Amino acid sequence: MDRRKFISSAALGAGATALAAPAIAQDKITWRMVTTWPKNFPGLGVGAQRLADRITAASGGRLSVQVYSAGELVPPLQSLDAVIDGTAEMSHGAAYYWQNKSTALSFFTGVPFGMTARELTAWVRYMGGQELWDEIYDQFGVKGFLSGNTGTQAGGWFREELTGLDDIKGLRFRTPGLGGRVWEKLGATVTNMAGGEIFQALQSGTLDAAEFVGPYNDLALGFYQVAKNYYFPSFVEPGLATELVVDKSKFAELPEDLQAIVEFVCAAEYDQVASDFYANDPRALQTLVNDHGVNVRQFPEEIVQAGAQASKELIQELQDSDDDLTQRTTASFLEALKLLRNRTETIDGTFVAARAQYFDL
Amino acid sequence: MDRRKFISSAALGAGATALAAPAIAQDKITWRMVTTWPKNFPGLGVGAQRLADRITAASGGRLSVQVYSAGELVPPLQSLDAVIDGTAEMSHGAAYYWQNKSTALSFFTGVPFGMTARELTAWVRYMGGQELWDEIYDQFGVKGFLSGNTGTQAGGWFREELTGLDDIKGLRFRTPGLGGRVWEKLGATVTNMAGGEIFQALQSGTLDAAEFVGPYNDLALGFYQVAKNYYFPSFVEPGLATELVVDKSKFAELPEDLQAIVEFVCAAEYDQVASDFYANDPRALQTLVNDHGVNVRQFPEEIVQAGAQASKELIQELQDSDDDLTQRTTASFLEALKLLRNRTETIDGTFVAARAQYFDL
Repeated sequence: MDRRKFISSAALGAGATALAAPAIAQDKITWRMVTTWPKNFPGLGVGAQRLADRITAASGGRLSVQVYSAGELVPPLQSLDAVIDGTAEMSHGAAYYWQNKSTALSFFTGVPFGMTARELTAWVRYMGGQELWDEIYDQFGVKGFLSGNTGTQAGGWFREELTGLDDIKGLRFRTPGLGGRVWEKLGATVTNMAGGEIFQALQSGTLDAAEFVGPYNDLALGFYQVAKNYYFPSFVEPGLATELVVDKSKFAELPEDLQAIVEFVCAAEYDQVASDFYANDPRALQTLVNDHGVNVRQFPEEIVQAGAQASKELIQELQDSDDDLTQRTTASFLEALKLLRNRTETIDGTFVAARAQYFDL
Repeated sequence: MDRRKFISSAALGAGATALAAPAIAQDKITWRMVTTWPKNFPGLGVGAQRLADRITAASGGRLSVQVYSAGELVPPLQSLDAVIDGTAEMSHGAAYYWQNKSTALSFFTGVPFGMTARELTAWVRYMGGQELWDEIYDQFGVKGFLSGNTGTQAGGWFREELTGLDDIKGLRFRTPGLGGRVWEKLGATVTNMAGGEIFQALQSGTLDAAEFVGPYNDLALGFYQVAKNYYFPSFVEPGLATELVVDKSKFAELPEDLQAIVEFVCAAEYDQVASDFYANDPRALQTLVNDHGVNVRQFPEEIVQAGAQASKELIQELQDSDDDLTQRTTASFLEALKLLRNRTETIDGTFVAARAQYFDL
């Protein structure tokens, strides 16, 4: 028996009776959600669990979602494959983890100097983003929904203070993905390693710097003990979106109300996860500064400027890709960003700057 | 028979059979949603309708929501009263319309120099805002959920260009609510009038200036024909949130899955409405500039600075209120804002400024 079919019918069988058609409301389906996050990981692992619980609650238990944290069912970076091969029905993670399947997927998480959390949903929901994402994931028989956003991340922990671009040359920096490629263009020696290995590498001097998420997540990992300079903002991760991926054909077989519940709960989670980060990042940052003597710094201007230039080159490379979908996704993203940045920069940005300058509390 | 009970049981009766308990899934409830928005009003009226449709879809029609636009069932500014007196089960509007019931309600829509759309949900969902809101609305037997946000609004349409504070003295300006009180402190002669009357008053010279929403809504009303200077941003409306208000006891009687659906659909709409504005405001602004010769301007610095000072005075007045709940809500809001602004201003704001400066497309 086809493994995928077997698991699918086994899952459908769980809790279902032998009765036929009109009993739909009584049918109970259990779906497995694998995630790329550790259990209880602030903001993200917690968000995956809450999303699952909310689907279960809103469906009155008709669609019950069982969460498997990173490694419990499959290794974290095999979460998408687990949905594709039928091991799980859902995956909670970030689309840019699957760049090996399509480079264009980066845009649905966030790219260097790209969209903020607010801009991303405008593109995805109103400017053609979702349609392109569907086209990419159609190739693998899955469908993606945005399910959270961390907001603009921290730029990273640096053992030494940065004075300018010269300090980046040869800097051994843990920063993954497209962001890492930008830092490479600035002269850093970029390496990747799992979150759990960073502390030791910073302590031993194998790394000079490391970027992870932001205060809320970084506090628990103790980086402040071995690198005292915490730089902001991460211009290479202006907003990291998470995704919920579902098996497309199993999703299509759900009753329409359950499909709607999955879709709307994901949309609810987008703001809920962001709220969690915006409420808890500043609390964690206060602890880092007041209790652990961390120096909060802004990157020197010439690093930001060079970072912007390197990011443009990188996005130009995506635009010039041989892959038609990557080309079209890049073009759509850039066209949307050109329009969206007007509002963000001249309306919202101007307000935030005015409040910072004139409205002290 | 008590009118409220009558309508409630009539609604429950619609489509329900005489069968008892286990048939819950087959019970059909129809609820009436009154709104403060005209039918199809961009972003807001459209959002109210979509919210209703989504509840109906996610519940498989078990909770079917019928929308009545402004004036269809009750006048727009009686929407909350309609829920309180049982004429409707739900109201879609903005909490600051009900300042006559409690001044503290302003905070759940937005206050001058207050929270952005992103900050507001952090306060409401993670920093005690919802609990205070519940306490305020408990007095009226209703419960509020955030259901949308316009983002930072436009500052208004001005017949003449502004050079500084002197131009505000005696300026006849249509701008309602707490924002109006700020402009009054700056010397304007503030009046209020319905949206549909603004055009005529600007044209005849009865008004020198008028503030409504933003490009997406303002375009359709044709203000550009009679006032060519469009000022940004509205520092008195940095983020206007909408609410869904429900009858608290009828809500408590819903099965738990339907309660969850109402709650999660509202949360989904918060980001959906904001996405709609962020995608469509810039498009409308392009039309205003390119096709209608509108001059987009930033307020002179001394007006912004004086506006910040006046907003502080106003919020201080709320803090000094005799009403215990207004006092506590103001204190909670200010404490949350003090913390939240760190992230917005030094992380997100810095990124947006850097992108504006170095990342031209």
